[in-house]
Amino acid sequence: VKAEIIASGTELLLGQITDENTAYIANQLAILGLDLFYASIVGDNHERFAAVLSQALARSDIVIITGGLGPTKGDITREVIASVMHENMEVDPVLKQNISSHFSRMGVEMTQNNLKQATLIPSAVAVPNPLGTAPGWWVEKNEKLIISLPGPPGEMQPMWQSEVHPRLEKRGGAVIVSRILKTWGLSESKIDQLVGPFMGLPNPTLALYAKPDGIQLRITAKAPKRAEAEALILERENILRNILSANIWGTDDDTLHGLISKILIGQNRTLSVVESISGGLLSSALAGAPESSRFFKGGIVVTNESVRTAFGIVGDSGPSAPGDAAASRMAAVAREKFSSDIGIGIDGGLDKATGLSAGHAFISILFDSGPAVSQSYNWRPQQLNRRVVMHALYYLVKTLQSG
Amino acid sequence: VKAEIIASGTELLLGQITDENTAYIANQLAILGLDLFYASIVGDNHERFAAVLSQALARSDIVIITGGLGPTKGDITREVIASVMHENMEVDPVLKQNISSHFSRMGVEMTQNNLKQATLIPSAVAVPNPLGTAPGWWVEKNEKLIISLPGPPGEMQPMWQSEVHPRLEKRGGAVIVSRILKTWGLSESKIDQLVGPFMGLPNPTLALYAKPDGIQLRITAKAPKRAEAEALILERENILRNILSANIWGTDDDTLHGLISKILIGQNRTLSVVESISGGLLSSALAGAPESSRFFKGGIVVTNESVRTAFGIVGDSGPSAPGDAAASRMAAVAREKFSSDIGIGIDGGLDKATGLSAGHAFISILFDSGPAVSQSYNWRPQQLNRRVVMHALYYLVKTLQSG
Repeated sequence: VKAEIIASGTELLLGQITDENTAYIANQLAILGLDLFYASIVGDNHERFAAVLSQALARSDIVIITGGLGPTKGDITREVIASVMHENMEVDPVLKQNISSHFSRMGVEMTQNNLKQATLIPSAVAVPNPLGTAPGWWVEKNEKLIISLPGPPGEMQPMWQSEVHPRLEKRGGAVIVSRILKTWGLSESKIDQLVGPFMGLPNPTLALYAKPDGIQLRITAKAPKRAEAEALILERENILRNILSANIWGTDDDTLHGLISKILIGQNRTLSVVESISGGLLSSALAGAPESSRFFKGGIVVTNESVRTAFGIVGDSGPSAPGDAAASRMAAVAREKFSSDIGIGIDGGLDKATGLSAGHAFISILFDSGPAVSQSYNWRPQQLNRRVVMHALYYLVKTLQSG
Repeated sequence: VKAEIIASGTELLLGQITDENTAYIANQLAILGLDLFYASIVGDNHERFAAVLSQALARSDIVIITGGLGPTKGDITREVIASVMHENMEVDPVLKQNISSHFSRMGVEMTQNNLKQATLIPSAVAVPNPLGTAPGWWVEKNEKLIISLPGPPGEMQPMWQSEVHPRLEKRGGAVIVSRILKTWGLSESKIDQLVGPFMGLPNPTLALYAKPDGIQLRITAKAPKRAEAEALILERENILRNILSANIWGTDDDTLHGLISKILIGQNRTLSVVESISGGLLSSALAGAPESSRFFKGGIVVTNESVRTAFGIVGDSGPSAPGDAAASRMAAVAREKFSSDIGIGIDGGLDKATGLSAGHAFISILFDSGPAVSQSYNWRPQQLNRRVVMHALYYLVKTLQSG
């Protein structure tokens, strides 16, 4: 089955906003095992939009359109579909009722131009949009399928997950299940090499994605029943875990800071940090964790030599230069100043006199049951602050999981 | 003149990476006053890619292609252009020399597959790529222009700025100059309303862009000589400054943290922060400023009630709850703990018992010449931490600029 995506909106052609929907849908189509050969962007011009849609219907089986479902005159997706299908738009009483109750809940009167968001053509059924006023259209005619969805990703993505994915899955006569394994510490090419034998296989399929929190492996299986798809996945997952176990830290929706929150709240332990080169990013990652105030007591950012002395990190009471000993001392200072159970110190090549390269970083974790554990790394200086924070979170998760 | 963009790469159709190049180029074409009616994505399939390129050449004057210039077999952009143009690729000795010196500088031997990056067709001239091995192609034939550029934005964008923009500008027989005014504190719709009379005018044009650091106004003028274009811009800029002066904080490449760095280093003053709801983001923004260690002494993140007491922010020596007084106290604690000239405190609705809404934030700045100045705001809770940090930086810049 060949699918095609059309992103509509003159604002995309003016570069005012970046189209994120095409990449999202492309990814989802890959999960469903549907081929995507073309994607286009077209402006809010009826003639050009209609030509692009006609061409798409001629060469593809499923055409997914994003955008152009708003209430303004510039929103022309419904009109374009109606004219290409040679059908007339009519107000659907149920949709009209939904939209007007939405407005009355918000204490606003529904205006005349919102009425077109309540229209359908005879070949179309509405795709519910729980987060906006514009329902999508699901149009089936002449063995072609058009799926029209709103442009805002915050509305489009939930509609995809709750409505489009299940309907497309059902058309395929099979259940599709995915599982994501999240790794840290190996490059994409290294993982590609380690799991190479499984990359080309058809069911389950395996795909790699480079994300800020590491390389993800996505296993996708297709079977007539969910239990069969899940069994296929479990078997493949066990093999991959044997190969990569040391670097896998989570699955599916897991985040590093989410796991830290869960483990520390469960253990009733608290955490604080003292960081130099990461400049506050580790604190902000931990402060952004779910229920952060239950375990994260705070942090100190020391970016200046005199401050390092004032906080007792270097000088009489500690080592004289950035490095492993300084990072351990920072972890101890964190525990002292914030009266927390666990302290993390991050230090690095701040001081050119030490001969440390600019990408050299030291991470130290001091547990209540001490002594400190620590690691040091060299990263490219451009990515250093983000990398060192991700690694500190990963290192803490791995240490907590194993302890 | 009608332009069209083709982003090539199967990885885009699999959703493995998001195409950022189309939005960038779309924006640049708007600056040049060129119309963009269509943009497409096509995979690394010769037949489909050639069909998309042929269609683009039939309906547009300029076709810009990104991606597919790498050394692998999957990189087929050169081959596709050559076949659509009915010309043969040949190795260009100068390009070959460039690539082989690039590899010898890196201490790596040039492999046979890199040789195709040194090819041209008779209608093509090379577009230099200072940051990669793949030069672009500039192909002019039959009154059509094809510009082929590499996919990595880090290579493509500098090539656009140094090579493509000047060449396209010259073709237009005019110089195009842009100036960006950066604002904070007004919504896009409010600015649209205030500067509405200038939005539809042809020369200079005016466009608005919503960015994380506020709404930007871009004035673009076109004239036979640079001085004339600059005069047109200056006149319009003065009018816009009269309207928006209170909210304009910078121009062109200015950043808030860059301005802070410049002003404070010039004044030989230092800065530190104590923050709660922003969780370390203000510290990390300041730590990321140019020459940060010359003015930023550090920060403390307090996310926990007991820590607020321990650091003297609330309790015996200060106010009992989050709010304006607590933010001022935090600014004072920052100055004390880090011995800095200026202290910033950020506090907000951490404590549900106070009845503060979750989006309520307080920013206080304590200058050496005290007393503290402060402001309070209500933002949507989802954006609160980023908004409050941007506002604190803006508020500091404005206060430093006026003082």
